[in-house]
Amino acid sequence: MRKPRTRIELYYWPGIQGRGEFVRLLLEEAGAPYVDVARESKDGLAAMMRFLEGDEPGALPFAAPFVKVGTAVVAQTANILAFLAPRLGLVPDDEALRAGAHQIQLTLADFLGEIHDTHHPIAGGLYYEDQKAAAKRRARDFVGERMPKYLGWLEQVLARNRASGGRWLVGSERTYVDLSAFQIVDGLRYAFPNALAQLEPKIPRLIALHDRVAKRPRIAAYLRSARRQPFNQMGIFRHYRELDAPPRRARKAKR
Amino acid sequence: MRKPRTRIELYYWPGIQGRGEFVRLLLEEAGAPYVDVARESKDGLAAMMRFLEGDEPGALPFAAPFVKVGTAVVAQTANILAFLAPRLGLVPDDEALRAGAHQIQLTLADFLGEIHDTHHPIAGGLYYEDQKAAAKRRARDFVGERMPKYLGWLEQVLARNRASGGRWLVGSERTYVDLSAFQIVDGLRYAFPNALAQLEPKIPRLIALHDRVAKRPRIAAYLRSARRQPFNQMGIFRHYRELDAPPRRARKAKR
Repeated sequence: MRKPRTRIELYYWPGIQGRGEFVRLLLEEAGAPYVDVARESKDGLAAMMRFLEGDEPGALPFAAPFVKVGTAVVAQTANILAFLAPRLGLVPDDEALRAGAHQIQLTLADFLGEIHDTHHPIAGGLYYEDQKAAAKRRARDFVGERMPKYLGWLEQVLARNRASGGRWLVGSERTYVDLSAFQIVDGLRYAFPNALAQLEPKIPRLIALHDRVAKRPRIAAYLRSARRQPFNQMGIFRHYRELDAPPRRARKAKR
Repeated sequence: MRKPRTRIELYYWPGIQGRGEFVRLLLEEAGAPYVDVARESKDGLAAMMRFLEGDEPGALPFAAPFVKVGTAVVAQTANILAFLAPRLGLVPDDEALRAGAHQIQLTLADFLGEIHDTHHPIAGGLYYEDQKAAAKRRARDFVGERMPKYLGWLEQVLARNRASGGRWLVGSERTYVDLSAFQIVDGLRYAFPNALAQLEPKIPRLIALHDRVAKRPRIAAYLRSARRQPFNQMGIFRHYRELDAPPRRARKAKR
């Protein structure tokens, strides 16, 4: 049920990958015509603010990202993906599979929220430096408990999905959820390189999924392009050495 | 597009309202036949654990709540609601309205996550007492910034929804999203009574929505029944006086 391709307007903060990146990956994989409004046009950021401040008709977004497709304004990352994916052939028609895909996407959203809160456990409006002690405690729990739990769950979902031979998370082909899982692994590799390296042997299917997505022709072209912004210390995935696990060698030396 | 009513199995932790309550409110308002498995049957909790441990076929839930409808296993609260609501007449057919409803539900889910983290800013696995200092800081930001922002946004969404004369959040009739907004306000009244009382004059439509939902015959009957568990200090909404705003009188006296 692919509909005629109207131009999609994506609205998100310039300068970071952030939550907007999950939408970009879907649009890029689909080869969909889109405009990254706040990055591409001079008045784009002001246009985005008009939506957030309630000066435009349609649904009122609580926050960016949101997309405009025709007259529809759609916000909340997972909702945007669930709205666009059927139009762009990135999720199967079957209702149970769609619910299964969305369930995984929402779990990735929870995971992402916890990743964010490792460096901002007290308040998004405070500097990292003003919540560093709490961040260290939260990150210790994240690295030791939450990150292995989420990644292990994703590995298990892959192992159980016989329809794809463990290659994709839902159904027999790649869906938008696989693109999001790629982004999570990619971001963790930037933010928590030691912790991820130590977990990698336990999640071979997920790592293979990451590499498989990275090699898809359109995604590979996107990742090489200037449209892909690098990870940085203003986004959701941030690398602070003190929040990551210690390197394996240092850990062994301590024993 | 109402489908024949098969019995719905709800799986959630007994003893708390938690995220399961959003599903219960939908099922109760719809008058749908359902079983609250882990509460109602002797072996229910063990049955729930089998799903969470991957010993049952179908989608693997990361966490409770999840529902079983026929052979479909559906997890993640907002996903469950989006899956059940069309079957139970609790969301319009129109695609843009459904996306609008889901966007609000996902924003309520983010709000709920922040409510939870006021008392557990460091780790869900630690006691409140072991993260009390961080909780106080996080709650101060929540009460001063985040809670007014979320509630103000909901008020604005109501004011903009002329199709319902500001009575419901989406479209012209009550949807599952209104039931969830009721639960959020009800929970905040338990957890942050002072902070909510001080904000109430600024959110008259939302408070009226809460009261309107509470008076719906099936919801009113449910709230009076033993099926509605009281709020308590093990759920998401917890009342700690030190996390709430000071009472208005005390605040004035300080000036």
